[in-house]
Amino acid sequence: MNMEMIWSGDEDLAAQCLACAQLSREISNRLGQYTRGQKDSWLLHAASLLEKNAEKILQANQLDLEAGPGYGLSEANIDRLRLTPLRLRQAVEGLRQIAALPDPVGEIREGSKRPNGLQVLKQSVPLGVILFLYESRPNVTIDAAGLCFKSGNAVILRGGKEAWHSNQAIFQILQQALIDCQIPAGAIQMVGTTHRDAVGHLLQLNKWIDLVIPRGGESLIERVAREARMPVLKHYRGNCHIYVDAPIDQDIAEKIIINSKCQRPGVCNALESLLIHKDHVKTFLPRLGQALSVKGVEIRGCAITCLHLPGAKMATEDDFAAEYLELIVSIRVVNDLQEAIDHINHYGSQHTDAIITKELENANRFIQGVDSAAVVVNASTRFHDGYELGLGAEIGISTDKFHARGPCGLRELTTYKYVVFGNGQIRE
Amino acid sequence: MNMEMIWSGDEDLAAQCLACAQLSREISNRLGQYTRGQKDSWLLHAASLLEKNAEKILQANQLDLEAGPGYGLSEANIDRLRLTPLRLRQAVEGLRQIAALPDPVGEIREGSKRPNGLQVLKQSVPLGVILFLYESRPNVTIDAAGLCFKSGNAVILRGGKEAWHSNQAIFQILQQALIDCQIPAGAIQMVGTTHRDAVGHLLQLNKWIDLVIPRGGESLIERVAREARMPVLKHYRGNCHIYVDAPIDQDIAEKIIINSKCQRPGVCNALESLLIHKDHVKTFLPRLGQALSVKGVEIRGCAITCLHLPGAKMATEDDFAAEYLELIVSIRVVNDLQEAIDHINHYGSQHTDAIITKELENANRFIQGVDSAAVVVNASTRFHDGYELGLGAEIGISTDKFHARGPCGLRELTTYKYVVFGNGQIRE
Repeated sequence: MNMEMIWSGDEDLAAQCLACAQLSREISNRLGQYTRGQKDSWLLHAASLLEKNAEKILQANQLDLEAGPGYGLSEANIDRLRLTPLRLRQAVEGLRQIAALPDPVGEIREGSKRPNGLQVLKQSVPLGVILFLYESRPNVTIDAAGLCFKSGNAVILRGGKEAWHSNQAIFQILQQALIDCQIPAGAIQMVGTTHRDAVGHLLQLNKWIDLVIPRGGESLIERVAREARMPVLKHYRGNCHIYVDAPIDQDIAEKIIINSKCQRPGVCNALESLLIHKDHVKTFLPRLGQALSVKGVEIRGCAITCLHLPGAKMATEDDFAAEYLELIVSIRVVNDLQEAIDHINHYGSQHTDAIITKELENANRFIQGVDSAAVVVNASTRFHDGYELGLGAEIGISTDKFHARGPCGLRELTTYKYVVFGNGQIRE
Repeated sequence: MNMEMIWSGDEDLAAQCLACAQLSREISNRLGQYTRGQKDSWLLHAASLLEKNAEKILQANQLDLEAGPGYGLSEANIDRLRLTPLRLRQAVEGLRQIAALPDPVGEIREGSKRPNGLQVLKQSVPLGVILFLYESRPNVTIDAAGLCFKSGNAVILRGGKEAWHSNQAIFQILQQALIDCQIPAGAIQMVGTTHRDAVGHLLQLNKWIDLVIPRGGESLIERVAREARMPVLKHYRGNCHIYVDAPIDQDIAEKIIINSKCQRPGVCNALESLLIHKDHVKTFLPRLGQALSVKGVEIRGCAITCLHLPGAKMATEDDFAAEYLELIVSIRVVNDLQEAIDHINHYGSQHTDAIITKELENANRFIQGVDSAAVVVNASTRFHDGYELGLGAEIGISTDKFHARGPCGLRELTTYKYVVFGNGQIRE
């Protein structure tokens, strides 16, 4: 099956999606057996080809940028769509970094010898076929292709229609790199239509697709969670908290809070909600309010906060549940650690929550009590990230509990099989 | 919320299911913090109470057995429903074995120190709330409660209506044990109605239930996979193969095949389909046909098999896909290893597949090529089991690739969180 033959207009879209998924499945059986050398060769070659063709990619991106207002994209969305020479260079560099990471396939994760002499190995293998759905940012095409390929998975990419030209230009180059390296071009596919129904069809094909990863806004993730018949790796909301305990070093606390909120407010691990121990209302709270104001952060506080910070607005219930992704923070004064834990478990999104404290016992109670993918003690929430936690490149941060939690790198894109070696053992 | 107040007839069943799930969620936050000692005390106490009340349980079981034919249960199903003193003793012994296993919660699975001094730990935590759906065998009530409790999860049990009296009798004793140990009784709940719609309601409650495990026939599993909004751990079909390669020791091959097929034909890791290298048609195949006949195994073969084994019936396509669970085996003669691998990946159920060979290269090719939860070399397929592979007690064998594959013991009922310790680090 030739990929260009799969996508032939919008007639019989279901059959086209099925053909696409079946091709991926067929090729995925071989991808798991590629050596690290074969995989890294492709990654490095693709990086070079992308560099050589940067001009062509940026031109295609220009077409998307010009069409953007016609799609009703906001300024922020058009910025996400924009590929600058720097952004492209960073994505290309990402492929080289993936090449430098160890091969996640074939790793013996555990092994034991049973009393009857059986040798039992637990060996990592690729998941198989991954459907990757994303929006706006065309550089994600490069990241996703690189991570899925290195982890031995066949991938079906489906970007947003607003990034069609950019994604197609990148995809053609990735394809050329596969052909040059004599790897079946179907290892990396891109859905060849912007028709919305294609996603619906693909989400039914659990026999051929092992995992779907939606990366985008809440409405995309909710639609996928509702319709998908295969597992979904969700990167959901990040309503991240910092609890400022009673015993603290105020300089450290201020530094961590400002960094968590302001260093990059538009990302999922940025601080959105502050819980402050009641002992701080007269000293640290005013100091912090001042520091936040200097940085241009709008404060929405509980009644006590507003009493001590005249510039603050009253927070609503919605504020405590909000993922602002901009220079706004909600603040609530709490009586004790337990109230902070209860608040976080109620309003939070199980993404990243931090405590600032000098008291070991309180740090431990916080770690135990808060049910989030990452719990941080005395550091910025912004560290919850694949690179910062030492996983290398990541495909997203899972807010699910099943399979993988927190940053998902190469290893999280694999599963395992049991390999049992005997010499004639039978069960009595 | 008192459990007995939750289930009040079939009116407003949706609200009752929601109350049940919410109670589990509330308690699950505490269960993850129990020490190993607290958990083991309950397991051992529950084991003693079950022993003391064996007579009561067996009497309740008698009521179910008498009602069985009225539910249209087959002889085999009534046998599965039957609790003998031995079966009950084994289930009770299972609780003691679970107590002897290490605590899967709080284990530091990995740890690293980052260049900026952050200490990053990956610590195991319970999944949260597990909905466990099962049929017929009342001893599963004991296994499931024990495994979920030791792994720090709240569990909602829902057995088949045919086992209602047995399950209720066991459940009352488990409850008493919780009360005696001063553990909230809601840690282990049982759905208090046999109404079929209760399952439908519970499967919608992904906000309060983290995982559903259906253990039963294909129709139950298919319904759950279709309706559930939370992840499903599926224990699906076991169409297990043995491929008999060209270079073999015939004695070992015969021994392994007879054991895999006959030692316990009604279970998921029993052999269902044999693939035999063409070199064996005149020598080993007739010998094996003889040995299988002596054991009363019916053979359904391909044309070549039937030519050499006059007693064999012609196999259909359906035979090669079948999970017989009785003394029937399908046999196909193949030209080479690759044909065997392709056959298994096409007809198999990714459960357990074995090769018998003397040739290391062929063993490795088989391991690489067959995409199953367990791949076995020169041993019985019957070893694919939590006890035999060293995991201790198991809650099922996953035929999914996501989260856990193969036997699922205590560890597979947990997830992890990242714990990050800093001393003021911020991101530059």
